[in-house]
Amino acid sequence: MPKDNEEIIISTGPIPGSKKVYKSGGANGDLRVPFREVKLEDSANEAPVQLYDTSGPYADPDANIDVKSGLPPLRDAWIRARGDVEEYQGREIKLVDNNRKEGETGRFPEFASKRTPLRATNGGCVSQMAYARRGIITQEMEYIAIRENLGDSGVRDGESFGANIPDIVTPEFVRDEVAAGRAIIPANINHPETEPMIIGRNFLVKINANIGNSAVSSSVAEEIEKMVWSTRWGGDTVMDLSTGDDIHNTREWIIRNSSVPIGTVPIYQALEKVNGVAEDLTWEVFRDTLIEQAEQGVDYFTIHAGVLLRYIPMTAKRVTGIVSRGGSIMAKWCLAHHEESFLYTHFEDICQIMKTYDVAFSLGDGLRPGSLADANDEAQFAELATLGELTKIAWKYDVQVMIEGPGHVPMQKIKENMELQLEICHEAPFYTLGPLTTDTAPGYDHITSAIGAAMIGWYGTAMLCYVTPKEHLGLPNRKDVKDGIITYKIAAHAADLAKGHPGARLWDDAVSRARFDFRWRDQFHLAMDPETAEDFHDQTLPAEGAKVAHFCSMCGPKFCSMQITQEIREFAAKGMFDMSDKFKSSGSEIYQPADKVKEDIAAAGDD
Amino acid sequence: MPKDNEEIIISTGPIPGSKKVYKSGGANGDLRVPFREVKLEDSANEAPVQLYDTSGPYADPDANIDVKSGLPPLRDAWIRARGDVEEYQGREIKLVDNNRKEGETGRFPEFASKRTPLRATNGGCVSQMAYARRGIITQEMEYIAIRENLGDSGVRDGESFGANIPDIVTPEFVRDEVAAGRAIIPANINHPETEPMIIGRNFLVKINANIGNSAVSSSVAEEIEKMVWSTRWGGDTVMDLSTGDDIHNTREWIIRNSSVPIGTVPIYQALEKVNGVAEDLTWEVFRDTLIEQAEQGVDYFTIHAGVLLRYIPMTAKRVTGIVSRGGSIMAKWCLAHHEESFLYTHFEDICQIMKTYDVAFSLGDGLRPGSLADANDEAQFAELATLGELTKIAWKYDVQVMIEGPGHVPMQKIKENMELQLEICHEAPFYTLGPLTTDTAPGYDHITSAIGAAMIGWYGTAMLCYVTPKEHLGLPNRKDVKDGIITYKIAAHAADLAKGHPGARLWDDAVSRARFDFRWRDQFHLAMDPETAEDFHDQTLPAEGAKVAHFCSMCGPKFCSMQITQEIREFAAKGMFDMSDKFKSSGSEIYQPADKVKEDIAAAGDD
Repeated sequence: MPKDNEEIIISTGPIPGSKKVYKSGGANGDLRVPFREVKLEDSANEAPVQLYDTSGPYADPDANIDVKSGLPPLRDAWIRARGDVEEYQGREIKLVDNNRKEGETGRFPEFASKRTPLRATNGGCVSQMAYARRGIITQEMEYIAIRENLGDSGVRDGESFGANIPDIVTPEFVRDEVAAGRAIIPANINHPETEPMIIGRNFLVKINANIGNSAVSSSVAEEIEKMVWSTRWGGDTVMDLSTGDDIHNTREWIIRNSSVPIGTVPIYQALEKVNGVAEDLTWEVFRDTLIEQAEQGVDYFTIHAGVLLRYIPMTAKRVTGIVSRGGSIMAKWCLAHHEESFLYTHFEDICQIMKTYDVAFSLGDGLRPGSLADANDEAQFAELATLGELTKIAWKYDVQVMIEGPGHVPMQKIKENMELQLEICHEAPFYTLGPLTTDTAPGYDHITSAIGAAMIGWYGTAMLCYVTPKEHLGLPNRKDVKDGIITYKIAAHAADLAKGHPGARLWDDAVSRARFDFRWRDQFHLAMDPETAEDFHDQTLPAEGAKVAHFCSMCGPKFCSMQITQEIREFAAKGMFDMSDKFKSSGSEIYQPADKVKEDIAAAGDD
Repeated sequence: MPKDNEEIIISTGPIPGSKKVYKSGGANGDLRVPFREVKLEDSANEAPVQLYDTSGPYADPDANIDVKSGLPPLRDAWIRARGDVEEYQGREIKLVDNNRKEGETGRFPEFASKRTPLRATNGGCVSQMAYARRGIITQEMEYIAIRENLGDSGVRDGESFGANIPDIVTPEFVRDEVAAGRAIIPANINHPETEPMIIGRNFLVKINANIGNSAVSSSVAEEIEKMVWSTRWGGDTVMDLSTGDDIHNTREWIIRNSSVPIGTVPIYQALEKVNGVAEDLTWEVFRDTLIEQAEQGVDYFTIHAGVLLRYIPMTAKRVTGIVSRGGSIMAKWCLAHHEESFLYTHFEDICQIMKTYDVAFSLGDGLRPGSLADANDEAQFAELATLGELTKIAWKYDVQVMIEGPGHVPMQKIKENMELQLEICHEAPFYTLGPLTTDTAPGYDHITSAIGAAMIGWYGTAMLCYVTPKEHLGLPNRKDVKDGIITYKIAAHAADLAKGHPGARLWDDAVSRARFDFRWRDQFHLAMDPETAEDFHDQTLPAEGAKVAHFCSMCGPKFCSMQITQEIREFAAKGMFDMSDKFKSSGSEIYQPADKVKEDIAAAGDD
């Protein structure tokens, strides 16, 4: 059993200045959908700002957090009420699942209150896509419809590149997008603890955080905290990339305590089971691993089924060859056996498993470029074509699909990735890593990649996989993870703004008004990272008084730009612009509204 | 006199793993142009990599750094040899220049070895533009031609949006770009210490760092160090935004020790001279300040001459009004006097001063947006039209011009800024602050703005003004400045790559090869910030042995993606791909070269 003091390192309680609120809704009115609400100072005379919230019950002071019991199974009743699932004995946990030998004690215990797994009855399909295609609106879809509506900024000046973001997201819209394969709801029936969320280009751009177990971790809570920490700051999904000892047990603790979907790369665990020798992998070992993880509740699997034998020679002349771990495992297997990958030859068998639990595919880009030099090359796009083919097969089984993308791509080649993916993969959601826009800044790859991530998110990528400052160098610590998350929230939100999401600018405008009014505390509380914003302010002007001061450290109290504008507004209010109005009516050549300026330019050419 | 121990805090010595080298050249063969050279491990079997270098003599262990004497006046002989300048008495330093009263002692002494100022003889013009237009190639132009050539990557796959970056930068090309006004060489004849550099969209994208004096600074060296620190990590120019006490003296110390061009906003000092009361500003005070700073050697002046009286009402309904400090000073003046700005009415007088010393204009965007809500609005573009008009006037006097740009702009509105600027301002170089692509992340605005900076740099901006993590919150410390610089170097280099700069990818490819070969030390040494790269690596795998290990902390020694590719290469070398070749010749539907895939898509439409 976990030690009694383990809970203490789990980050709980509200984000500073924010409060977890719930919006009721759903056909039965019984849904409670969380938001991060920021109440502003009275002087603002503004309604509280409601922001999308991924932090789960952990940020709710009223929630009873007990990692030994796990989170409440929010979706359990919904899943069972659909009447198409059954409890069953499930696969027996083997020593090899935890990379342990007979008689060896693991570091981490089994999760105590073990669930009995569910599966679809009679070989059916319980995916959200299957329901959507039958015209059914699930509670998950209703929940998402409430969650995705952030209000109306009144601003519709985005460039969406063909995305169709509605003014209001209705349950019907969610259903139709899922039915069309343009969005997925990762929602394994064995992970009822999730707060439903959606990944698709006609919704808010999402971000994923990767976590992995640590060989020196002293407690289960420490592993759970990585997930909690990532979602606290904005991770919409978490991929558990753990390897080595005790990964089955670690994963169980994480899933039972996660309110966001969990993704994995099952080939990693399969490789452990054959002692790290890629050529010893078999379909049977892989299949067994899929069932093990599906029964635990993993919501999406990265499967590198597009790495075909004939594509491997295309990578021989690359600068950085194959950099995907899953891709290189499969390449090694293919070469050793001179056979087509079992992920490809058994793809329909895999679909049969996925549909039984509603595990979504994240079709891995095993041949993604590892350097600018290899971007958009033959190997990359050949694999993409196969992923498009596999998408169609998965959809035949009503299995949900997203497609993984690069990687390392210079700015001018990013758009081509998005356009090709949409075409080749039939608008299945794109899920990209970055891309990094230069290879020259190890130690800053959260930034080199956020540039690419913001752009590809704008062009249409549905979910951005974060990159931490330690990418290419080492394993991220707590600060690195937060830096990666916030950087990617920035990229995702910048993309939402550019696409013209109807609610996106409400947040920016609230910050801007707070900034202009010198409501320092509102500015901190509205920040993506309120702790850092306040800390940075205090480093220059630490006095409490400075937080209500009508100036900032940039100009100081003597002269303040913002105050001048206040005076201009007073002038305007008092009608004191007669003098300048005279200028206007005298018809100066220069005074022209912006649109007029543009027209004149278009007419005159370059003078 | 500075205390004897002051020099010790100036950062000197090479960037770790790099060496300052000089390339000889010029018509007389006497130019020595610096580069940062990274020698690679013998196993790489590659020539050393030469990178653009802004660090000045400070990074050269052979240089004799003595802040009391200043740097050697590299350009002094060139300037005098042109035979069109004269020494003269110059303006007498007044107490008010340092914001001091009679009998008061300043914190910082005067710079001891004071230069006698130079000016153009007989009311002439000594600007690089004037020479260029007369067909003259100056030593500055020759120097730049050598400096801008970083080799040939053999890659020409950029999208330049109309920029014309040549394969090789010749002195003639530099001259022609300056003559056309498409590029500027900030090179005040009273700042002969500069290593010539160029700002224009057909050259490498440059970055500027802002510094300001500190009220608690204990030594002159501490102020100089801010400039040295910024240029050490890549600042191409430095703007000195100091205010308050001792700014004349501080500026003198900075200029005499700076190998990069120095920019200022003279209205800041003029405002000090009238005790911070904007309405007390006069043309005479401003004029006197211009001459004071021009004689010291300031290379470019930000002048907000486009803030016209009739534009001010356009800002009344903005969310964040006027956020430019210079813009709001002038707005206040205009309102108080109900008169057109003296910067506008005396613009030709200002040109007369600028041409006498070769000070370049940085035409300030006093009405730039301070929030996404205000981006691309009437006020902003009305001012831009005036800046275009003023550009033509400055060029009449052969005065060099660049144009300042925003600010806060969502991604989808960035390109319009660049396109309008090129049209309205006749291709004069654009110099932008960011732009920030969201307002929601105070504490991370180096990142919110690097996204916009990389994009606008790609579209054609010639110089990017950095933003530190403390933007909007407080004054940057040493770490913030470095974070801002490296982040902006990333944005600038990403832009060079995307534009298709012929030498840009040499750097990325060298890093990628080092990464692939597990030449860890080469990867650190080639990094934009070698210290952070090595430190991050050591946090996970600190042993010295790990720096030569053929694996990394991400996969560990048991399984390594990179090693698989080595095996694939060996397979390929041994002709062992017969099996997969058979697949190829059997004409699989899926196997298609990337171009073929694209063609098929174009033909087939969306299936």
